[in-house]
Amino acid sequence: MTLTAATLIETAQSTRQAAQTLASWPGEARNQALVTVAEALKDSAAEILAANQADCRQAEATGLATALLARLKLDASKLEAAIAGVLSVAELPDPLGRLHINRELDAGLILKRVTCPLGVLGVIFEARPDAVMQISALGIKSGNGVILKGGQEAIHSCRAIVHAIHQGLEAAGLPPETIALLTNREETLALLELDRLVDLIIPRGSNSFVRFVQDNTRIPVLGHAEGICHLYVDQAADLAQAVAIAVDAKTEYPAACNAIETLLVHQAIAAQFLPLVAAAMPQVELRGDAQTRQILSITAACEADWATEYSDLILAIRVVDSIEAAISHINAYGSGHTEAIVTSNSQTAATFLAEVDAAGVFHNCSTRFADGFRYGFGAEVGISTQKMPPRGPVGLEGLVTYKYQLTGQGQIVADYSGTNAKPFTHKNL
Amino acid sequence: MTLTAATLIETAQSTRQAAQTLASWPGEARNQALVTVAEALKDSAAEILAANQADCRQAEATGLATALLARLKLDASKLEAAIAGVLSVAELPDPLGRLHINRELDAGLILKRVTCPLGVLGVIFEARPDAVMQISALGIKSGNGVILKGGQEAIHSCRAIVHAIHQGLEAAGLPPETIALLTNREETLALLELDRLVDLIIPRGSNSFVRFVQDNTRIPVLGHAEGICHLYVDQAADLAQAVAIAVDAKTEYPAACNAIETLLVHQAIAAQFLPLVAAAMPQVELRGDAQTRQILSITAACEADWATEYSDLILAIRVVDSIEAAISHINAYGSGHTEAIVTSNSQTAATFLAEVDAAGVFHNCSTRFADGFRYGFGAEVGISTQKMPPRGPVGLEGLVTYKYQLTGQGQIVADYSGTNAKPFTHKNL
Repeated sequence: MTLTAATLIETAQSTRQAAQTLASWPGEARNQALVTVAEALKDSAAEILAANQADCRQAEATGLATALLARLKLDASKLEAAIAGVLSVAELPDPLGRLHINRELDAGLILKRVTCPLGVLGVIFEARPDAVMQISALGIKSGNGVILKGGQEAIHSCRAIVHAIHQGLEAAGLPPETIALLTNREETLALLELDRLVDLIIPRGSNSFVRFVQDNTRIPVLGHAEGICHLYVDQAADLAQAVAIAVDAKTEYPAACNAIETLLVHQAIAAQFLPLVAAAMPQVELRGDAQTRQILSITAACEADWATEYSDLILAIRVVDSIEAAISHINAYGSGHTEAIVTSNSQTAATFLAEVDAAGVFHNCSTRFADGFRYGFGAEVGISTQKMPPRGPVGLEGLVTYKYQLTGQGQIVADYSGTNAKPFTHKNL
Repeated sequence: MTLTAATLIETAQSTRQAAQTLASWPGEARNQALVTVAEALKDSAAEILAANQADCRQAEATGLATALLARLKLDASKLEAAIAGVLSVAELPDPLGRLHINRELDAGLILKRVTCPLGVLGVIFEARPDAVMQISALGIKSGNGVILKGGQEAIHSCRAIVHAIHQGLEAAGLPPETIALLTNREETLALLELDRLVDLIIPRGSNSFVRFVQDNTRIPVLGHAEGICHLYVDQAADLAQAVAIAVDAKTEYPAACNAIETLLVHQAIAAQFLPLVAAAMPQVELRGDAQTRQILSITAACEADWATEYSDLILAIRVVDSIEAAISHINAYGSGHTEAIVTSNSQTAATFLAEVDAAGVFHNCSTRFADGFRYGFGAEVGISTQKMPPRGPVGLEGLVTYKYQLTGQGQIVADYSGTNAKPFTHKNL
């Protein structure tokens, strides 16, 4: 074992132990801790902003990409918003101690299924120092310890923020080890190997980064590598509505994972619709299949286009001859994120919502609504494109699990087995 | 790609497509299919029993282990019970189409979260041909296709059963490809690689087999490799009750995953309790730590004993000086399956239930109650010791996922962003 791995195991054990204290606190006390953390962050604003300026200067000097630099930069208003975010997490309903099942198995033998924390979250992110505040707040709220690993480019900012968070935790009477910060590059891989000490990995960064994390750990990963979303415009669509939705879904924020990459158009309305949509998004590079190119003079889309997340002002277009063809294209090339149909035919819409295999299936609205805040979850931990729950935008629900508590008065299974077996009552309370 | 892999991909694609038909059927029609499958099994009873006799003869000739032979053997009454099991699955509540969330995001923009099938289940099992009937029934009920891979020793039985199931599916108007049977040994590994076509793997067999499956696939695995369960007898325990629970949890069915492997005893009552428990289970080999051996003259337990699932009439015993020591032993050596405490002190019990990290935490009752049927789930798909849900005994709930359906009237995100952003109503309906 390397020195890094050994030190990391100690850190993770401390965080795990601290999290057990946190988990035993009632919801009100965890909310109060969020208040003291927010106050400590406010009190340390000057230090945090100065640390961030140091990071930004260094990033500029080393020529960090503009997009990353924008995410790295923390000014007074961005910091204020992040601190307000910490306080708003305190306002959310408590995700712990929720009773899913409360059932009498027999007289005096009571089964409860209650939500409880996962334990320790491992969060690996690039650039964005505000993520430290957000994820720490969600961890405290949900009774989980958090091990954070930020990018080297944000190291001073992260240290200053975590220092303030530790002061806030101590003011609340919580061990500072609840939130740990890793600052050493080798620690990322070592963290991914701690499947006995870390319960969930949340990677925040590029698609390739998320895929790397997924491929290098046995720990469950919350997130998604790709967002290849489609809009299918049916023959029975209101074309003006379809144009507005296509423009919103492609151009409102093209780098978002819920933006569309491919537009599927029913052949019956293609000749009428395609010129309208092309005119409505002149800034977008369109790539089409053969049928599309008989209507629009644009570049040809090749096989790779159907499987690409452009994250940019590029849109692939394909003409299909039926709803079935649209569904089978989507189920073949989609990433299971969010898929939408525009149609006035409710039967066609029902088929689409039932048969498309994705976390989000939308009818007559933009794919861009796929988001935890827009869904009303209050906080978003990530968006999962996996088949098993939690799926789609995940709020605090994704940071908790449950356990079965069975309380008896000395009951043994032998009495409920064999020829004179006592029956179970299985009565929900 | 090998020929096996290529053929398997075709099989899996057919099953996936057949499952989509099944998934679109209402609950009543799926139940009716269970009835026709049960009838077809009944009609084929003679063929199935003859096929099983051929398997058993061959297994005896090749010297199959007695335990496996017992699981392989299917007589008329076992077959009848399995067919009754298929019909009882029809009686369970429909796991599909359940509404978790029904929320207005804004006027005319309605979000629903509804349960839907996973898609295709891959089930790999040893010996037991009755598993084919049970898991096929659960697949039909939950709208999932099933790819079955049984052991070579049960090949004739499995073929005869699946042949009958196909007849039952056809009588119901369903494609027979809904349930596929693999009969070729190389197909197991190839199946584990189909993460684009198979959504969940359910392994049924020995611990080492389950661990092999977990280590060789990216597909989620439902099941558990180990069941290392503990019983902690507190200083405030009713000793007669503790003896009865210990005997039940160890001896009622020692090969069960919810049987205990280690008994933890508070030192304050050890001298009084240990002789009672030893006298109550004379057939059990006891192994103790140093303190236990000052009271009982038994073999010494070594470090490996704390981490071993005996699945046999052997019990490790350790004396601890506090509830904290008991919890920390359990959290270090337990497999997260089921852990129990015997105590009359409700405060101590509450600490145990809160701080022990396991799918099941029990107070004053036997660990052997950890079971889907005893919990009242009607059917048990498996028991999961993973931290993320589904955790513990899993019923039909574990064979479904959910999707978010958003239905609008042309809404776009641009109207809900920026300075004049429309607010969301987030009103639960």
